[in-house]
Amino acid sequence: MSDELGQQRPERQIRVLVDGHGGDDAPEMVLDALQQVLSPAFASQFLLPLTFGIVGQEDLLRPLLEKRGLTDRVTLVPAADIIGMCDAPALALRRKKNSSIHVGARMVRDGDWDALVSAGNTGALMAVSKFILKTLPGIDRPAIASMIPASNNGRTLMLDAGANSECTSDHLVQFAIMGSCYMQAAEGIEYPRVGLLNIGSEEIKGTDVIKLTSAKLTDSELNYIGNVEGTDLFGNDVDVVVCDGFVGNVALKTMEGTARFLAENMRSELTSGLVAKTGALMARSALKRFKDKVNPGKYNGAPLLGLNGIVVKSHGGADADSFTCAIGVACREVSENLTDRITESVQELMDA
Amino acid sequence: MSDELGQQRPERQIRVLVDGHGGDDAPEMVLDALQQVLSPAFASQFLLPLTFGIVGQEDLLRPLLEKRGLTDRVTLVPAADIIGMCDAPALALRRKKNSSIHVGARMVRDGDWDALVSAGNTGALMAVSKFILKTLPGIDRPAIASMIPASNNGRTLMLDAGANSECTSDHLVQFAIMGSCYMQAAEGIEYPRVGLLNIGSEEIKGTDVIKLTSAKLTDSELNYIGNVEGTDLFGNDVDVVVCDGFVGNVALKTMEGTARFLAENMRSELTSGLVAKTGALMARSALKRFKDKVNPGKYNGAPLLGLNGIVVKSHGGADADSFTCAIGVACREVSENLTDRITESVQELMDA
Repeated sequence: MSDELGQQRPERQIRVLVDGHGGDDAPEMVLDALQQVLSPAFASQFLLPLTFGIVGQEDLLRPLLEKRGLTDRVTLVPAADIIGMCDAPALALRRKKNSSIHVGARMVRDGDWDALVSAGNTGALMAVSKFILKTLPGIDRPAIASMIPASNNGRTLMLDAGANSECTSDHLVQFAIMGSCYMQAAEGIEYPRVGLLNIGSEEIKGTDVIKLTSAKLTDSELNYIGNVEGTDLFGNDVDVVVCDGFVGNVALKTMEGTARFLAENMRSELTSGLVAKTGALMARSALKRFKDKVNPGKYNGAPLLGLNGIVVKSHGGADADSFTCAIGVACREVSENLTDRITESVQELMDA
Repeated sequence: MSDELGQQRPERQIRVLVDGHGGDDAPEMVLDALQQVLSPAFASQFLLPLTFGIVGQEDLLRPLLEKRGLTDRVTLVPAADIIGMCDAPALALRRKKNSSIHVGARMVRDGDWDALVSAGNTGALMAVSKFILKTLPGIDRPAIASMIPASNNGRTLMLDAGANSECTSDHLVQFAIMGSCYMQAAEGIEYPRVGLLNIGSEEIKGTDVIKLTSAKLTDSELNYIGNVEGTDLFGNDVDVVVCDGFVGNVALKTMEGTARFLAENMRSELTSGLVAKTGALMARSALKRFKDKVNPGKYNGAPLLGLNGIVVKSHGGADADSFTCAIGVACREVSENLTDRITESVQELMDA
């Protein structure tokens, strides 16, 4: 390829940098995931060539890369500091300028890498990314977008999942725009149905902020379908569910808690009594299919939408398989030019 | 029994009035439940004699009672109007003064009955009850308290589950006091552990209202254990979880949605393929025990706490079994003198 001046331009690639220090089981879990994404099976999902890097402490990560024979296949980007899971975001932002998250975000800003994926401290990842990458024109606050499994192999995107505890109606409308663009780009839904998470389907329900948001969404160019409830998250009637980060985070963690509680009870019943146990063994493949299907790890990788650059947050407790999914989310965002598309759509919808 | 003046005093009883018109399957579902609570098995749970009444349209309910031979065993309290599930609470309060809910609440106020149980319109039930019964001294707003199943056959009480979308820190502190008293009285927990629903366990998380509430709870005489998250609702580390009604309602409906989604997927996997199906049949009793154990109907019956009288809200979609559970909740509240106990505790905690 050559541009107008006849100079050689590098072939377009998908270049993803992963944080070597984020997550309960880092760095080994991160390296396990890197081995998975370097496989031909993973690469075959994308039309563009993939390049991976890991950012973090060189003396710790270099020997691990060598041990796995990954030195030539994964670029090591040195970063001296580590942001802990309990560090206060504001302090981490100011005091750990050489952390893996800071260095990673700067490299995405400078165009050295296309995306950063981290299983680290959510608040710090958001604060640092926002400070370094800035928000897109027209967007006041980035949001964490979380994909939820729905009936009939559907998917629902919920945002904000925890970045902004308090939101104005304008923030919520911006989340609706970003979520709609994301579902267009990532899931190919032409005209995504947007719902507002509320405590009843009637117009009169909810807080003043919710009522004002509903009025603004009704007047927007979005495919706004009105209020939805917690029970609708798993249905097939809505594609994008908008809420503030407090409510979204409680909803997500309640899902996690409910699923874990049910699984524990199921397991204890199925393993007590010989007949039940034998039955459970016979039904094992069905139970495994069920588990695979509703496995939350498959949905791991929450994009921080609204930033001028691609950043994906993985669950802190992710294993290698689910961290691989989060890297996949980042690759798709790069391959679909998500940042540019959201920028254009926000502009169009705001001009309308 | 006779009082100081030597007059005959009626023996103490538990007198519960049920709304004949609330719920998707009323009035038949309500009558089915009345037949259950008239059984010796139900009565054996209580030391005091039980008396039941049904409030609603006489010409509709009288023939149904006659058909079931219940005319002598259930008092029919006539009420001309019905509040629909979609009626706006404020309008229903003003315009339907002869509704079953209005008449029922007035009879509880006047001491003719000890408690009202309804599966009807939640907002209207709350508005009418608050208007007629008033709140207890020191309580600004009543809250809906919802019991959640927890590990090891435990129970967690969450409030508010939907009555108050927007709350101040004082409201939330009052919910904490009422929830704590309820768990003492209903579950016999001496010093219930109170947690504040938040989006992280660290002190710095959450909204300004949440942070202020946390500071006030820390200074209170309650057994306050700090922030809890959505994942903690099903654990054994907290007895009372406090939140505003918006967040509580979203959490409850998200639980419901998650459980339904998982059950559907499980069912579809277990009924596909002969081996899986046979295994599922063999494990049937285990699956049934599991279902019984996590059956949300068992936890039906949410007290409206903070009123000067006992009112219990049943899920609108309740069947007779779960409506029976809601009547049981009301009977226990009467038998434990819950209103008086909350009044005393609120006074003590406010004086402290």
